[in-house]
Amino acid sequence: MASGVYIGIDIGGSGIDAGLCGADGALITRGRTPVVSGAERGDILRDTRLLLRSLISGAGVSNGDVLGIGVGIPGSFDGERGEILYTANMPLGGLNIAEELGCDFAAPVHLENDANCAALGEKQAPGREMIEDMVFVTVGTGIGGGVIAGGEIYRGFNSAAGEIGHMVIERGGRMCACGRRGCWERYASATALTEAAVRLAESGRGAAVRRLCGDDLSRVSAKTPFDAARQGDAAARRLIDEYISYLACGIANLVNILEPQLVCIGGGVSREPDEWLLGPLRDAVYREAYPHGRARTRLESAHFTEDSGIIGAAALCRSKVS
Amino acid sequence: MASGVYIGIDIGGSGIDAGLCGADGALITRGRTPVVSGAERGDILRDTRLLLRSLISGAGVSNGDVLGIGVGIPGSFDGERGEILYTANMPLGGLNIAEELGCDFAAPVHLENDANCAALGEKQAPGREMIEDMVFVTVGTGIGGGVIAGGEIYRGFNSAAGEIGHMVIERGGRMCACGRRGCWERYASATALTEAAVRLAESGRGAAVRRLCGDDLSRVSAKTPFDAARQGDAAARRLIDEYISYLACGIANLVNILEPQLVCIGGGVSREPDEWLLGPLRDAVYREAYPHGRARTRLESAHFTEDSGIIGAAALCRSKVS
Repeated sequence: MASGVYIGIDIGGSGIDAGLCGADGALITRGRTPVVSGAERGDILRDTRLLLRSLISGAGVSNGDVLGIGVGIPGSFDGERGEILYTANMPLGGLNIAEELGCDFAAPVHLENDANCAALGEKQAPGREMIEDMVFVTVGTGIGGGVIAGGEIYRGFNSAAGEIGHMVIERGGRMCACGRRGCWERYASATALTEAAVRLAESGRGAAVRRLCGDDLSRVSAKTPFDAARQGDAAARRLIDEYISYLACGIANLVNILEPQLVCIGGGVSREPDEWLLGPLRDAVYREAYPHGRARTRLESAHFTEDSGIIGAAALCRSKVS
Repeated sequence: MASGVYIGIDIGGSGIDAGLCGADGALITRGRTPVVSGAERGDILRDTRLLLRSLISGAGVSNGDVLGIGVGIPGSFDGERGEILYTANMPLGGLNIAEELGCDFAAPVHLENDANCAALGEKQAPGREMIEDMVFVTVGTGIGGGVIAGGEIYRGFNSAAGEIGHMVIERGGRMCACGRRGCWERYASATALTEAAVRLAESGRGAAVRRLCGDDLSRVSAKTPFDAARQGDAAARRLIDEYISYLACGIANLVNILEPQLVCIGGGVSREPDEWLLGPLRDAVYREAYPHGRARTRLESAHFTEDSGIIGAAALCRSKVS
């Protein structure tokens, strides 16, 4: 393969995703190795190497064809030294991943915040070639964000900008693990929606929620209240309406502050059909966002879904190499 | 003057400020012409020309020494065409200010949002040479903002990013003129503080507020409750404490989202002594901002106060010319 390949790695608390991208940025192949609870650093590194080896041999290329490696880190890191400083739920602090992988492949290794990688990945999607300013909002356990400004990843001071989930939207509201009250993610994350659905079922309303989880409330997910609402459950419908108004509140804040061309929503919730999520979300955001009556920020779901991080990590190192 | 001068103009609803800056960016001279209520476009333009003429002759330079003109616009504009599209409270919509002033001086004219000019101006202050990412927060009638990202003005989609005052911090709270409820500026602008001080006095508490304004509540300003608190008025002190916690809430949001190296506070409130404003504000922001225990965002008052916009407008055109 004359033009070589780029490796993108997306480290997550429950698994390592990795893929190979061509010079044009397109994903050639991808794979995943789970990170089991209690896994040690050596295990994780070994499994990652095995994953990369199988991807490379499966694609019919060799280590020498790898032109660069990008790694998305769910935590803090020293990009200059190539060292992971801290990751929650994984013992990777102190690991110099640039040295470890760099000597396997004799290719440069670039570290980046995982949400920034996902933002950069989504920017590669069709129809987004002209996007200069965007915010990627990942709705999951919490709410994370990656900001692109002027076509480049915006990192901020400690390379930790984009903690958009810890924007207070309801002062004095629900306690957040970060120490503040009323953070956006306490109302608009997948966790918050799941908790609200469980509370609804526990209160005796939202019968469809209870039915859908077979009376086992530990099986409720963020998808459950959407499914319940689709079955015509009025209480679940109200819950979804409220959820979307919370999601819209934070997005309208980001639009007012940054006025990006695009806000891209990732995470499981973003896979809900447009009439259930993006449609009502757009209505609410456009009603609230400040620049009334002018060209509007596009509001879209993630295009590459679980591959955004891989594609972005590879794109990061393509742009640095070329 | 061999190296030439740059004109910075800061258009405001109550007056036009203008100044000449040297090649090093330092302000040589400045002046102001008021904009009276009901003034027509021709009057404003004529007064601006008179102001510029007097500044130039006063500085002992000629029109030919002017290398560039920067204009800060409190509204929307078409930077390519050099045309003002809309300004609140002033009939400048449709004025091609680049043509009008450009032909007087045979120098390029650059238009920019006024808060962005102020941000760029403040970035020129001593000790801020290394600042790449900053937010300028102007606390006045409302709360405006200018964002610098990677050393450059961040404009967003319609060149109107930085509507930070219209970030909801108290969902369902006070009605804002923008149509949302609970916008930051409804709690933390100078207007909000003034209104709260008036309500305090009207309720029979905060006796010092009433005393300081000679029993004429229309004379209460944002400074009055600070003065009352300094005189030992406990109710005014509580009002100031609450005000600062609201101001801190929005600043902590901005720090979490953008993690800038510097948040710079402008507007009249920023002239309060540090022990009354910046000290308690820093305590609250550092307690709430997400990256606990790491290098912190600097929190400072505006250095150039009412000259930030002029200096920034001139700096804008220096950077474009050189």
